[in-house]
Amino acid sequence: MSAPTPSPAGPRVVVPAGGIGGARFLRGLLAAAPGARVDVIGNTGDDITLFGLRVCPDLDTVMYTLGGGIHEEQGWGRADETFAVKEELAAYGVEPQWFGLGDRDIATHVVRTQMLGAGYPLSAVTQALCARWGLPALGVRLLPMTDDPVETHVVVEDDQGRRAVHFQEYWVRLRAAPPALSVVPVGADAARPGPGVLEAVADADVVLLPPSNPVVSIGTVLAVPGVADALRAAGAPVVGLSPVVGGAPVRGMADKVLAAIGVEPTAAAVAAHYGARGAGGLLDGWLVDERDADAVAEVEALGIRCRAVPLLMRDLEASAAMARAALDLAAEVRA
Amino acid sequence: MSAPTPSPAGPRVVVPAGGIGGARFLRGLLAAAPGARVDVIGNTGDDITLFGLRVCPDLDTVMYTLGGGIHEEQGWGRADETFAVKEELAAYGVEPQWFGLGDRDIATHVVRTQMLGAGYPLSAVTQALCARWGLPALGVRLLPMTDDPVETHVVVEDDQGRRAVHFQEYWVRLRAAPPALSVVPVGADAARPGPGVLEAVADADVVLLPPSNPVVSIGTVLAVPGVADALRAAGAPVVGLSPVVGGAPVRGMADKVLAAIGVEPTAAAVAAHYGARGAGGLLDGWLVDERDADAVAEVEALGIRCRAVPLLMRDLEASAAMARAALDLAAEVRA
Repeated sequence: MSAPTPSPAGPRVVVPAGGIGGARFLRGLLAAAPGARVDVIGNTGDDITLFGLRVCPDLDTVMYTLGGGIHEEQGWGRADETFAVKEELAAYGVEPQWFGLGDRDIATHVVRTQMLGAGYPLSAVTQALCARWGLPALGVRLLPMTDDPVETHVVVEDDQGRRAVHFQEYWVRLRAAPPALSVVPVGADAARPGPGVLEAVADADVVLLPPSNPVVSIGTVLAVPGVADALRAAGAPVVGLSPVVGGAPVRGMADKVLAAIGVEPTAAAVAAHYGARGAGGLLDGWLVDERDADAVAEVEALGIRCRAVPLLMRDLEASAAMARAALDLAAEVRA
Repeated sequence: MSAPTPSPAGPRVVVPAGGIGGARFLRGLLAAAPGARVDVIGNTGDDITLFGLRVCPDLDTVMYTLGGGIHEEQGWGRADETFAVKEELAAYGVEPQWFGLGDRDIATHVVRTQMLGAGYPLSAVTQALCARWGLPALGVRLLPMTDDPVETHVVVEDDQGRRAVHFQEYWVRLRAAPPALSVVPVGADAARPGPGVLEAVADADVVLLPPSNPVVSIGTVLAVPGVADALRAAGAPVVGLSPVVGGAPVRGMADKVLAAIGVEPTAAAVAAHYGARGAGGLLDGWLVDERDADAVAEVEALGIRCRAVPLLMRDLEASAAMARAALDLAAEVRA
């Protein structure tokens, strides 16, 4: 069972993506490039089983955002959400209670869990869920990075000692408060790229790395054997957008996990972490925020074409302008 | 893992029970006999797996009713219920859509499904769920009739031909419209009584058959090998209350399934169906409604002590009066 291939009228764009930042960037991309075929390689390392239900936070954030079901202010979860099930689960005293599963959201997990239990791979389940949200009509395929189990664990140390916790526990329950000593995509070494992932990269006209978390979002996608190699071998230009603006992550707590891999929270350091394609890395181009204009020379010295543009996704128009700047830089690299 | 045994201050009462009628009678019994220890033998033949969630309608109706969570007017499901999950499941197009799973109710099924998946038997799961609802403090143990799979099927014939459907599909989706040709508790022949069931019957001071459906509720409990024999062998008097008043079931569509087993919808015919204990049946006593006073002689001619009393559970006081009448008749039989 493979995803149907729409005939692309515009460019074929591949976007490895994590959660909120990736989803908002994708919405801008669809506005900037109508007719594009967009293949999203979705991070599944954040996935978690709660109360027997399989939850895929990053896939769902992309699906809900593009399908019009997202809670706009929050950036994740469903609009007009209620929490009756969560209240009742708490009344039964079952754990964990730190994860905010909404009622509408739960229906997604119920359908997913039932389909997985019936033997469908996650890629087929995701395709079925996305059909309801109209992603095929938008020219978007949401491809899980893998159908195999990968679970991002974070090694932390606090007054309870040193231990590995699931990324969701680190991010949601502990609010990234304890220092992250390391981040491990458990299972990634044995994972195979999901159906269509390598083909999408090979067929791409352009690859964009959105301003998602370089460690726990894009980093996890790249940890699936074959994906980074495919990107390095791609004929298409690879352009990334810095998730760090003015020395701090635009959203979330990305600096916490950057520290765990020894990367400074600067736009230039993240570019250096991805590396220049000419030097065995991934990037042909890199966008930094206007405020980080002084990083342009530093990034170009690495062999990566670099431009400074506004990088705050305040609204759809700002996100679309960022996508246009990325596509323009890709065209410039290609020329 | 077996249920803890509270020290009874009052009589030990065993009540095989189905759904709404059984639950409301039990509430009356608790009001009529404070201090009683009540062991409910719950029907599990109505249980169904929907969207991967294990739903036990009769157990939950008893649990919610006694625990104060029931939707009072409806008689089943949760008070203050919402239906966000159901709406979303419908938006995903998943079937079946004819079963009204509410959000609060779903939490019960999520906990149950997770515990069953972890290897706990239904009896232990039910005990855990009932703890939240305070049933132990009421002196009530809710014992599933069996931990083994039993599923009541109804053979129907309509314009789609003759076929067997799950009881819930017959009752909820088809609204008992097609004639029921037969009712089969699939799996009952190989089921073993649940933990504590036979012991409860052996230790009982009195056994009451509430005005539950004699076929698909009490009949299914009696279909578990060993249960009917234990009741026949019990030292305690067995007194039942007619679910048929004035020639029609008090609630629901019991006449539909009575026809399937060849029993007329009359108070006397249902008594004859259960049979007199002296003649190899179950009953020592039988209560009919005042309107069926002319059935008393007919029932007593079977060897079953019979009284005519008001049998409509209009409110808690009416239900309590019925329970008192049943306990009085049991005392009379015992004397």
